[in-house]
Parts: sequence; C-alpha cells; structure tokens
Amino acid sequence: MPRGERTLRLQHGSRIEALCVLGGHVRADVFGAAPAGAVAFGVKHTEGVSVDVLFRGRAEPEAVPGAGTRWPLDEGTALRFSMSRASSEVNDNKVTVSFFAEGGKPINQAGVFLTGVGISLDVDADQDGVVEKNSPNKASWAWGPEGHGAILLVSCDKEFPFIPPSDCGHEQVFNREDLLDMAQMVLRTEGPQRLPRGYEIVLSISANDADKVGVFHVQNPFFGQRYVQVLGRRKLFHAVPYPGGAAELDFFVEGLRFPDETFSGLVSIHVSLLEPLAEVWDLGGGCWGERRGERSRFLPQGIPHSPIFTDTVVFRVAPWIMTPSTLAPVNLFVCSMKDNYLFTKEIQTLAAKAGCKLKVCFGYINRGDRWMQGWPWAGQAWDGAFWERRFLFRQGPDFGYVHKEPLFEATASLDSFGNVEVSPPVSVAGKEYPLGRILIGSSFPAPAGRRMTGLVRDFLYAQRVQAPVELYSDWLAVGNVNEFVTFVPTSDKKRFRMLLASPAACYRLFREKQKEGQGQATMFKGYSGTDTKRVTINKVLSNDVLTQQNQYVQRCIDWNRDILKKELGLLEEDIIDLPALFKLDKQGKAVPYFPNTVTMIVLAKDLGIPKPFGPVAGGECCLERRIRALLEPLGLCCRFLEDVASYHGSLGEVRCGTNVQRRPFAFKWWHCTP
Amino acid sequence: MPRGERTLRLQHGSRIEALCVLGGHVRADVFGAAPAGAVAFGVKHTEGVSVDVLFRGRAEPEAVPGAGTRWPLDEGTALRFSMSRASSEVNDNKVTVSFFAEGGKPINQAGVFLTGVGISLDVDADQDGVVEKNSPNKASWAWGPEGHGAILLVSCDKEFPFIPPSDCGHEQVFNREDLLDMAQMVLRTEGPQRLPRGYEIVLSISANDADKVGVFHVQNPFFGQRYVQVLGRRKLFHAVPYPGGAAELDFFVEGLRFPDETFSGLVSIHVSLLEPLAEVWDLGGGCWGERRGERSRFLPQGIPHSPIFTDTVVFRVAPWIMTPSTLAPVNLFVCSMKDNYLFTKEIQTLAAKAGCKLKVCFGYINRGDRWMQGWPWAGQAWDGAFWERRFLFRQGPDFGYVHKEPLFEATASLDSFGNVEVSPPVSVAGKEYPLGRILIGSSFPAPAGRRMTGLVRDFLYAQRVQAPVELYSDWLAVGNVNEFVTFVPTSDKKRFRMLLASPAACYRLFREKQKEGQGQATMFKGYSGTDTKRVTINKVLSNDVLTQQNQYVQRCIDWNRDILKKELGLLEEDIIDLPALFKLDKQGKAVPYFPNTVTMIVLAKDLGIPKPFGPVAGGECCLERRIRALLEPLGLCCRFLEDVASYHGSLGEVRCGTNVQRRPFAFKWWHCTP
Repeated sequence: MPRGERTLRLQHGSRIEALCVLGGHVRADVFGAAPAGAVAFGVKHTEGVSVDVLFRGRAEPEAVPGAGTRWPLDEGTALRFSMSRASSEVNDNKVTVSFFAEGGKPINQAGVFLTGVGISLDVDADQDGVVEKNSPNKASWAWGPEGHGAILLVSCDKEFPFIPPSDCGHEQVFNREDLLDMAQMVLRTEGPQRLPRGYEIVLSISANDADKVGVFHVQNPFFGQRYVQVLGRRKLFHAVPYPGGAAELDFFVEGLRFPDETFSGLVSIHVSLLEPLAEVWDLGGGCWGERRGERSRFLPQGIPHSPIFTDTVVFRVAPWIMTPSTLAPVNLFVCSMKDNYLFTKEIQTLAAKAGCKLKVCFGYINRGDRWMQGWPWAGQAWDGAFWERRFLFRQGPDFGYVHKEPLFEATASLDSFGNVEVSPPVSVAGKEYPLGRILIGSSFPAPAGRRMTGLVRDFLYAQRVQAPVELYSDWLAVGNVNEFVTFVPTSDKKRFRMLLASPAACYRLFREKQKEGQGQATMFKGYSGTDTKRVTINKVLSNDVLTQQNQYVQRCIDWNRDILKKELGLLEEDIIDLPALFKLDKQGKAVPYFPNTVTMIVLAKDLGIPKPFGPVAGGECCLERRIRALLEPLGLCCRFLEDVASYHGSLGEVRCGTNVQRRPFAFKWWHCTP
Repeated sequence: MPRGERTLRLQHGSRIEALCVLGGHVRADVFGAAPAGAVAFGVKHTEGVSVDVLFRGRAEPEAVPGAGTRWPLDEGTALRFSMSRASSEVNDNKVTVSFFAEGGKPINQAGVFLTGVGISLDVDADQDGVVEKNSPNKASWAWGPEGHGAILLVSCDKEFPFIPPSDCGHEQVFNREDLLDMAQMVLRTEGPQRLPRGYEIVLSISANDADKVGVFHVQNPFFGQRYVQVLGRRKLFHAVPYPGGAAELDFFVEGLRFPDETFSGLVSIHVSLLEPLAEVWDLGGGCWGERRGERSRFLPQGIPHSPIFTDTVVFRVAPWIMTPSTLAPVNLFVCSMKDNYLFTKEIQTLAAKAGCKLKVCFGYINRGDRWMQGWPWAGQAWDGAFWERRFLFRQGPDFGYVHKEPLFEATASLDSFGNVEVSPPVSVAGKEYPLGRILIGSSFPAPAGRRMTGLVRDFLYAQRVQAPVELYSDWLAVGNVNEFVTFVPTSDKKRFRMLLASPAACYRLFREKQKEGQGQATMFKGYSGTDTKRVTINKVLSNDVLTQQNQYVQRCIDWNRDILKKELGLLEEDIIDLPALFKLDKQGKAVPYFPNTVTMIVLAKDLGIPKPFGPVAGGECCLERRIRALLEPLGLCCRFLEDVASYHGSLGEVRCGTNVQRRPFAFKWWHCTP
C-alpha cells in the first residue's frame, strides 16, 4: 500500500521480521496478538522506530510507549509504527510487546525485527527536466499552466519510420544517445547492503498498458552503455536486483501509442516490494500452530510472495499534434517520380526562395522499401497530405512520432490526411486554443452522407489539445477540407487569414471582366489537363448548369464558413475569398473546374499556388491578378506553379506531391486546459 | 448553424427566397451583391424583419435602415437580419437592397423574400420531468446537483431479458405504455401551413451513435397509438413531415448500450432544416448567369439539399449501477434444480422471515429457453452472482436494464460477477460516493497474475458513478472478491459494517477453544461435501502446512483490508473479522477449508449464512456461536443454511444459487460528481 497503513500480524510467542518502508505506517493489532488471560501490555522499541499506541483505532496523545508503561488491553488496541531512516543492517530495529495477566504477572511477548528501507520510483512530475525525489505529484496528472505530471513521447525507430508497430520497441538494444527522446525514470533505494532473504523488488505495468509503453534499463554498466527493454509488450514484470546502500537506478521510458478513444494517454508504472511468507519464529510460546524451532527454516512450498509496498508513477503520452500551415517551414519534401521532373524543379525554386530545405524522396526507394510493405496507405502517402503529417509530428523532443495503425487502415478518402487540417492558434469567446483546432471533414446530416470513420475521428478527439471542429466536406468528390480552406500567416495583429474557395468571388470577377469587354478572354491556355475546346468568360457565365452547381457549392462552403467563423472566433475581415469554380460529377460531388488555388503550399510568406489557368486578358491571367491583389498587400508572395496540372490532372493540387515539416509550436502542449 | 450566423448570398438583379429560422441571424454581403458602378445603397424591409447594417463587419448604432437612408458601399458592408415571429404565409416578409451610382442614380436591386419558421428540438434538460422549450442546456450535459442535461435509460425488451442485442429495439412496434421508460423528446415547429417547395425537416443521429440510441414516433395517430422506430441502427435519418402552424411532435428515446470505454454515454440527436437550391429569380438584371425568366422553374438535377439550420439535443445514457448488499431486498431469486430442493426450502424460510418475495426460476425453463441460446454465460449465470446483477439494474424508471455483450463473453472467473461487488455509500477524505464504490477483483503485480479482462474493467470504470476500487483476488482459486468481503446494514451512524474473512480470527478462536479443553471438538459433522476423516481443533492447529497457508491467505486479505480502509475511508471499528480457513490447491490458489461464511446472502437484517460445520462443543458449533456474537449485537439476525454444502460442494456459497433484486438508491445518479 503506497502511503496507506499496512496491516502486520503480531503473535504472542513469536518474533517475526518485517521490512518497514520509510514514510509508510505499519499497524499491528495488540489485542489480537495477546495470549489468553492477558489484561495489560507494555511496549519497548529501538530508537529508529516511532511507535504510537492506538486505543479503539485512535492514537491518544499520552499513549507514547516507554520503559515500564503499561496499558490496559482492550479490543481495538493496536500499535502504529514507522521508520524515518533507512537501516544500515538487516533487523537493526525491533518492537517488543509484553503481555501481563491480572496482577501484573508477565505472560508472554510478541515482537518484530524491523529493517527500514527507502524505495521511491521517481519521474519529472513538474516538467522542469529534473527527476525530483518522491514528488507528491508523481502519481497523478493535471492539465494547464498550474498542472503537473510527467510526459512521454511516442517514439519508434527513427531511421525506419515505416516499421510496423509490432516490430517497434521490442528486443531492441539502444545506446545512450538513442534514449535522448525518452523520459527518465529513477528508482531510488536506500537500506542495508542486502535485503532479508526472499524479498524482491519488482517493476511492473498492467496488461492494459503493455502496448503503450516501453521501459529500458542498462544491461551491464561495466561493458558499455547498452540499454535493453525491461518492460513492454510481453514484459509486464521486471525484477530489479537490490543494489544495496543508497542507490539510484536510471530507467528510460518511451510511449508506443498515441492516445485514442480506448486510451486516455495516461500510463502507470509501479514498483513493488514483495515479501516471502514470514519464516522466523525465534521466541518461545505458541505461534499460530503453537510450535517452534525447526519450522523457522521451513520454507513454504508454492506460496507466492505478497506485496507489502507499491509506489506508482504516471506518465501522459504526448498527443498527436498537427502544425498549421502558418508555422514556419523547416523541410519541404517532394516525391520525385519519372513524370514530375518539371514540378520538382518548380518546387525547388519555391523552397530556395522560402529558405527551407528541399528533400527529394525517390519513389522507388520508398515504394520498394521493405518497411513500406503491407502498408495499405503506402500509395496514399503521396496522394494526400500524409507525408506532411508524419514529419510534422516529429517536433523535437517535446513531441512524439506518429505511429498509429488505425489511421492508415481506412481507405475512404474522407479518412485521408487531406481531410484533416489544423487552424492557427485561436481564441474563441474567451476560450484559448493555443495549438489551434483540428478541422475534420465530415458529412452533413443527409441520408447519403459519407463520414470520416469513427476510428479516425475518435483518435483526433482523443488528442484533446487541438479540439476538433467538424466541417462538411462530403459535397466534394475527394471530400477533403483542404479543397476549400487554408490558412496563411500575416504579420498584423491577427497573425493569419483564412482563405476560402469561393465560386461567388469567381463569378463576380468574371462578370466584372465581361463588363470590361473581356468576355472572350480564354481559359486553360497551356493547360494540359483538359480537352482543347476553347473556354471563355462568356461561355462560363452562360453555362446555366455550371452556375446552378456553383451556387450549390457556394452554399456548401458557406455552411462551413459559418461553422468556421463560430468555432474559430473569426470575423469577416479575417477571411479572404479566393475565386474558384467547381463542377459536379455524376455522383453529384464537386470537383474543381480549374486548378484549385486554395490548395496552395504555404511556406511562411511564400505561397506555392496551383496555377489556375484562368482567362487571359492583356497577357495576364485575371485569376492570378485577383489572387495577387488579395494576398500581396498582406506581405505574402504568390508563386504560381505551372506543372501542377499535368502532375495531377484537372484536380491538381500542389500539396499532393509535397509535404512540409514545420517548426513546432513554442507553446507546451501540457499547458493546455482541454 | 444553430445560434450562429448564416451566410446568405444576395445578387443584384435577383430576388431570392429564404427561410429565416427564428432566433437565428442571417448575414448578407451587400458589397458582394452590388452591380459594377454602385457606390451607395439603401435598404427597405417589412415589419417582421429586423435589419442591421454592418460596416466592415461591425454594426454601427446609427446604421438602422429606413426609407430614404443611403449608405456608402464599401468592402465588408453587409446586412444582418433576423425574425422573431413565425410567418403565417410563405414569403410574407422581404428585404430589398437598392444600389445607386455616383450622383444617386438607381442602378439595380437585390432582394430576398423571407419566411419565418420556428424549430426547436427539446428535451427535459433540467431533469424535472418537463420538456421545456429551447432550454439553453439542451445541447450539453453537466454532472452534479447543480448540473443539467437530459437522461436516457438503457432498455431492451422487458419480457425477454435474454433477447440478443442485435434483435433489440429494431423494427419493433410499441404501444403507448411501452414507452413509459423512454425519454421524451419534442420537436416544436411554428410557421405557415406549408413550407416553401423543396424544404425538408430531417431528424438525424451520427453513425457513431446509431447503435446506442433508438427513437420512436407514432405511426399513424388516427389508427391507434402505434409507435415505430424512426432512428437507430440502420436508420440515421428520418424526414419529418412539416405539420404546419404551431405544432409539437412527440418522440420517445431509449438507450441501447451502457457507457463503456469507447462510449462516454453521451448521444446527440439533431434536427436539420434542408433547403433546396434557390430557384426563384423574379427581378430583372443579371443573376450569376445574367439570365432570367424560364430558369426560375429550372430544378437542378442531382444537386443535394443543403442544411440551413441544425438544432441538437444531448442525452446521457444511464450508467450501469450496482446495488450494495446493504440495500433492502425486494425479490429473492433462486434457481430450482432437481438436486436442491432442501436448499430451496431453506431459502424460502429466509425470504419469508425477511419479508421479501421469493421467485423460483426453474432450470429447464431458463436453460431451454430460446433466449438463452448462444449465450456463453448461460451456465455461469447460476454459478456466480450473475442473476443478482441482472435484476439489480432494473431499478425502476431512473435506471436502465443491463444488456451488454462483452461482459458475458469472458470465461475466466476473474470476470464473473462474483468478482464485482459494490460498497455502501461512503465518504472518503471529503469525497462523497453516494452510490458506493465498485470493488473489482484483480491480480496484484506478480508475474503469474491473472487479471480481470480489460473490457470488463474498462466497462466498470466507464460507468463513473461508482468509481471502482481494484482489489487483489487472484490468490483465490475462483478469484472472486465476494469470497473475502461483504457488507451488512446496521442502524447506527455508520449504517454498515464491512465483513472480512479472517484466518487469524479463526486460529485465535480455535486456540481459545483448545485452551478451554475443547481440542477434541470435531468439525464437519453432518457435512456431506467432504470425506469422513475426523477433523478436530487439535488436528487443525497442529497442521503446519495449513497454518502456513493461512498465514499467507491472511496476508493477502490484509493487503485488501488496507486498500479497502483507504479507498472506502473505513476505520478498524467499521470492520468485522469473520473466522475463516482456506487451503491452497495444487496451483497455490486458495479455496475455503470449511463453508465460507462471508459469502452470505444479506436480506436487510436477515442474513443467510453458509453453515460452517465448525467444531461442535457442548452441542454448539463454536464458529456459529462466534459469528452470532459478532453480528447479533448489531441487530442482525443470523440464519445458517445447512444445505449449501451439498448444493455446491466444499466451496459452498449461499449466493451461488440465489440472486437478490434490491430497492434502488433514492439518490439520483446524475447528482454525482464523478
């Protein structure tokens, strides 16, 4: 029992031996241990033990035992003792109870030899980088700037991000530097050089936590710093050899899973002190069986040890945190394939301008890599914003690495990562979201609605620090929220703008141009993703079906606009409408009519925007001009990427072939108050 | 958008029609709707509409529209309007915006016909039995006496408690009286006799909630009160015919699942107003496509409706609540089988004395019943306290009926219901547990530990109102906590005592008797469950192995005693040690040495205790005598049931063949603060 009172059974005629854990209390029933005929008792004890006499369960102030004091024996009379210093030798303290008959005649004694031992399992419960000793907060966790509790990163083999989870964290041997991202846990012990015979110290985790946490310990301190796993899957228990004296044993802890619907994120690790069945009977008189002598060496067969002390520490596994596009980029990943050389070149220029590193991943390496095998999303990785997410989460030592199977099992595109975005930090009616809010694409209540699978949704909700907002993306063929909303950084007070795809803005622009006499301006010049029919502003504006479809699309986007305004606390002036057109496919789902500029890649002030191939008048695309007019006054730099269309057909999106690793939030996630 | 602002797109040259939901705001961009060349605008509107003019998104006090007032047209200029009374006719209100060129020349107009409609989905959010209109608390839930939120019972077909869940609540037709245990939900609508063409009202639940809730509605009010399911599994949407005028439609809601690890207990039901794509264009000038006339009847093909308003209500499904043995019994169930006639007779006497109804279930009925088929626990039901639990949960209209598959799938006995007990209401260090705390048997951290499966544990934790305490029961062969702890009611201030099995108390008693010269007193007289060797007090006390084993058992029980004292806030005087002996089987697990008296059946003050067949001296069993001496001063009446042993062999327990339905707690579970 941690911090509780431990029951010890004394017995007249016996002297037992017991460990006394420092800081703990031991309670021994005196009445129950008395021989028949006893009416009074006295207590003697060594200096290292504090003893209270309790009458009917309550300590009385005058009841401090001392030489010669005798107390009446009554039901409920008990001793409570504790030790505050560790023993230097086994059994170096003792408590003896003497029983007296009517008239004061001594009848018998009961006693206990005590060995004081200090044990504490410690973590950095105040998140200051130091593993303090026996923090009162080590077994609990609280959110917020005034909160407390140790944290744990979700990690996996760093060189092989695609290693299947079942291979993760098992039977691995690490060097000291491999442990840098792990949380430190210290087992502190204090006591004699050896424990009495049969006692054991055991680290343990529950079966529930076994797939969520791994604990590593140095294998042999004399032969290099090799660390092996001592707790984790298939390893619920680890006997720790008692080091003797005052010692600190370092353990390193990693998370193996992000929180999800079935996992709150909290894991507990315990240390227990196990006691063998008492085996010392060196006083005369009847023990339970009223015999003595030879039995003192009788070791019970097949009787398990029982725990006399357990200390627990709690960690919270770091949540999956997404970085909004408004954060500064660090690395830009692009997948190089044989047909996207031009695109790669364009991206290279963009990255150079934005001052972030370009990392080209060669398709054959990744697709052929053994770590990719069997992963149903291997193809999707390049098709959605998947890679971006994977790298985003590797946010330095404060954040974990994503490795969550269910996220990748879903095949419906509502589950793809393009369907999850994250807003910049916002404040909504007094409630702060310092890490922003996750935007989930979902269906709106209609009979034919698709919906992100519960698994992914619930996973996102379970992260807690970026409370999700559910949008309505099911009106899109691909169903991804990044087809109608993105965020760009600004240097003003608001710090960002939300960009929305807007058919209304496009029709307004086109009508303006028509009024200006440019109705014959032609779209899709040089665009390889569509057929060669000439499309003019006049043609677009006179297409009734297209108009109707875009009115519908606008209403769908407006529905989201209204949700976003409310849930992100935005005003109209925080929103910029980018001209966009959609058309409906045979299923009545929307696809972009021309390359969708809102699916841009945001590298700080530098924007890589899918070239819209809009109506060209006076040698200039009026869509590009309008987009520049909307964004450049905010200090943003627009770069229209030509090759997107051929790279991704008429649904072209710059993000599809790229992924950005961004500088993580400076804000500490555990300071959130979800 | 509930309570948010809805975006509406005006367009010069068009007059559209729109529904305006009472209490909601509609925002229309004036700048975006203006024709080229417009520099000012004016607004006219009917009386039923309130209109604000917003400049750069902010209403200015002087900007109240009126006849003749003109405002400059600027980016961000918008109208916000709302209606506070329902329309009596479609389109009986309108807002018209007139645009003016430099010099005041009128250019064009944009307008909207408005129909005011009131919609609210209502529940009893303040738990007073009345479904109030549009409670501000209807979409959220808060625990505690100051909390709020509607509640829902988990129900299943009442006549067939064993009906598999997949057959539950589906395609069922109910009469009005069948709905008594369901929660009422009211859809209130107010408006003209008909809605404009194409509008729909849809009730919906998310796919996530579909297996957790069922909603019923009257099928045809003119042909008897037959209620059919309108939402539930496979029915995520239900179109509600618009009743016209001011109307209230009653729905009835039942829970289908208890909260569990993957289900917080909260379910949401939505009503949405769906709008078809606007189709009225009756003003001159260009709409988006700059045409008019015939298109006003053009109905877009394959374009889904879009939602313009959603109202949501939230229910919490009642948790699984256990009734402690200290609550008064209502019905005592006993399973009659061919070999337990005597036992049934004894139980009958006990029930008569306790004044509770005896219900005999005939084995052949239950085992042969088609509702029992395929239930893996059908046998276990009679072997653990299973039946007791099933009936316990049928606690009147405030509580639900248990119907949870996973609980019954587990076969390990740590998962049986004997391994879950519940304490009486307790107060622990200032924290109140007004419904007591669930006691779960579990393993203690040791390599060979069994453990209640995570599913059951997590289910119990998910109920929240009886926060579980994990005990260590794995040292027992059967592993059930009811083998060492029970609770009896008392009429003093504490209101209960905790009874613990105690080998130490038994050895103390036996040694007393030996000292009194009764060492030859013989046990197991008349006991049919063991062999015929004569067992005396002397023999028991001289059995070294038995002594050792019971020391170990005592230590295991003491471990639990220490936890229980701490977690239930108990003092020593709240605990009574009942003499018990155990022996270890070949696996080192404990089984009772004589019938285990702590597994008694508690019917208020009347206790049905397994007859221990202890040492008989002076014609009296010293165990029975000691137990009476411990319990009768508390006002309890001990009845030792003889036939238990033959009924259940040497592990005999009275509870095994019986189950008690108890009077539910008067305390309302939603007043808990978990």
